[in-house]
Amino acid sequence: MKTVSTARAHGGTQGVYSHESTATGTTMTFSVFVPPLDEGQRAPVLWYLSGLTCTHANVTDKGEFRAACAEAGIAFIAPDTSPRGEGVPDDPQGAWDFGLGAGFYVDATEEPWAKHYRMRSYVEDELPALIVSEFPMLDCSRQSITGHSMGGHGALTIALRNPDRFRSVSAFAPIVAPGQVPWGEKALGGYLGDDRSAWRAADAVAMIEDGARVKEVLVDQGDADNFLAEQLRPELLARACADAGIDCTLRMQPGYDHSYHFISTFMADHVRWHGERLKADR
Amino acid sequence: MKTVSTARAHGGTQGVYSHESTATGTTMTFSVFVPPLDEGQRAPVLWYLSGLTCTHANVTDKGEFRAACAEAGIAFIAPDTSPRGEGVPDDPQGAWDFGLGAGFYVDATEEPWAKHYRMRSYVEDELPALIVSEFPMLDCSRQSITGHSMGGHGALTIALRNPDRFRSVSAFAPIVAPGQVPWGEKALGGYLGDDRSAWRAADAVAMIEDGARVKEVLVDQGDADNFLAEQLRPELLARACADAGIDCTLRMQPGYDHSYHFISTFMADHVRWHGERLKADR
Repeated sequence: MKTVSTARAHGGTQGVYSHESTATGTTMTFSVFVPPLDEGQRAPVLWYLSGLTCTHANVTDKGEFRAACAEAGIAFIAPDTSPRGEGVPDDPQGAWDFGLGAGFYVDATEEPWAKHYRMRSYVEDELPALIVSEFPMLDCSRQSITGHSMGGHGALTIALRNPDRFRSVSAFAPIVAPGQVPWGEKALGGYLGDDRSAWRAADAVAMIEDGARVKEVLVDQGDADNFLAEQLRPELLARACADAGIDCTLRMQPGYDHSYHFISTFMADHVRWHGERLKADR
Repeated sequence: MKTVSTARAHGGTQGVYSHESTATGTTMTFSVFVPPLDEGQRAPVLWYLSGLTCTHANVTDKGEFRAACAEAGIAFIAPDTSPRGEGVPDDPQGAWDFGLGAGFYVDATEEPWAKHYRMRSYVEDELPALIVSEFPMLDCSRQSITGHSMGGHGALTIALRNPDRFRSVSAFAPIVAPGQVPWGEKALGGYLGDDRSAWRAADAVAMIEDGARVKEVLVDQGDADNFLAEQLRPELLARACADAGIDCTLRMQPGYDHSYHFISTFMADHVRWHGERLKADR
């Protein structure tokens, strides 16, 4: 692992790091905020998965998470959203909703994507193992996860697959049912192929229908979000959770759009909500 | 005035606007955050002047001011740092510390700068008048000012010139004595010419020595700031203030650098400090 930069921020340290990923076969960059810690103290971890077109940098610059993380004593990790670099194929039309910046947190099985587009393995297995070995001040027995849009999809599906690893999951304007919306149909069709049955393990609503469970979910959604009706459809998650007995809090936020102005407004709330769960006796 | 974008944020509205400036002869862009207001309520105003290489966007994206401004009911205005566009000359070597992004909040008298580089008139006169006419929900009888680095220099000099207009002035890692440091010597020499006596009206320490007064100043400065010893030299301000009977609070912040990680850490403090003064009976 290489340190790209570190800076003191809100009493802790905001770092950016890179490493050679086995999962993606590329150099991957991510950011970690470590809150102020007393000697010997270790911080629980909140993962944040970003949305389409983003890198680690968008939330690191604009997410306004550091003050709340410093106060709650929580570390904040932001991975990239796709492999990048020479030899990594992109959407043939250069579209922003597939390929670079749009890995969708799946392991592609279709060519030419299967070689590098392995963001599920990267975010779910490889990067957590790197964090354990490189950041001894983080307590990886206490982890939670959140994300925005495509990253909300990532957070929900990863939490549903690993209910024992994550104490809590939340999302900002998530894609909840990629198998039922245009962004998801394009991405899952491209990375996983035409057989829709293979998509269900990468679709939060389908996973819940098929028996996956978490205890509870917190979702914030702006009602002025241009993608709400066609791409996000949080009501599908609310209904699936209700049917499955999962406690789903879906807060419609009047006037908010899909941008970091929305995310940063509710970020501190999410950090505190996860903090309560990360610090509770289990 | 044209609205470039608006978005709901922290219960208020973050906007970006542009207009044709008479002072600079160019299109100028700025941002305004209006906090949540009750019917008929008006918000006092905090100006933020940015540092070298920045536009309105850096602090708007990374300043982390909105939560504190929303809570205190304060509007936040961020102008650009120089004229821009076709026909605006730049540093002949393309340096980042002169020309575009480096207007230094002075009205240039030297050619070829004198035509467009009129940032003192722009920030001190033209933009405030535009704000009064376009933002009736702002209470411009209550204004304060802050800034970073070159913008700290701007905030200090503008406040010293207009002690009745601004209730309070603070700065993050300001250039306090441009006439005594390399950045300032290059900028003031370039824009104002070789006669150093003409620089004194654009130099906070010299202005105080020459009799300009404010009641008090709050300055935060990181002690890991690469520019501290050569370019910033806040001890010169502290000494001038002590000699002049100005209450100067200079807080050296251990481990902090010159970046927005430093600014955003102490932004909420500055917003609250100005808020107390903006809301006090006068």
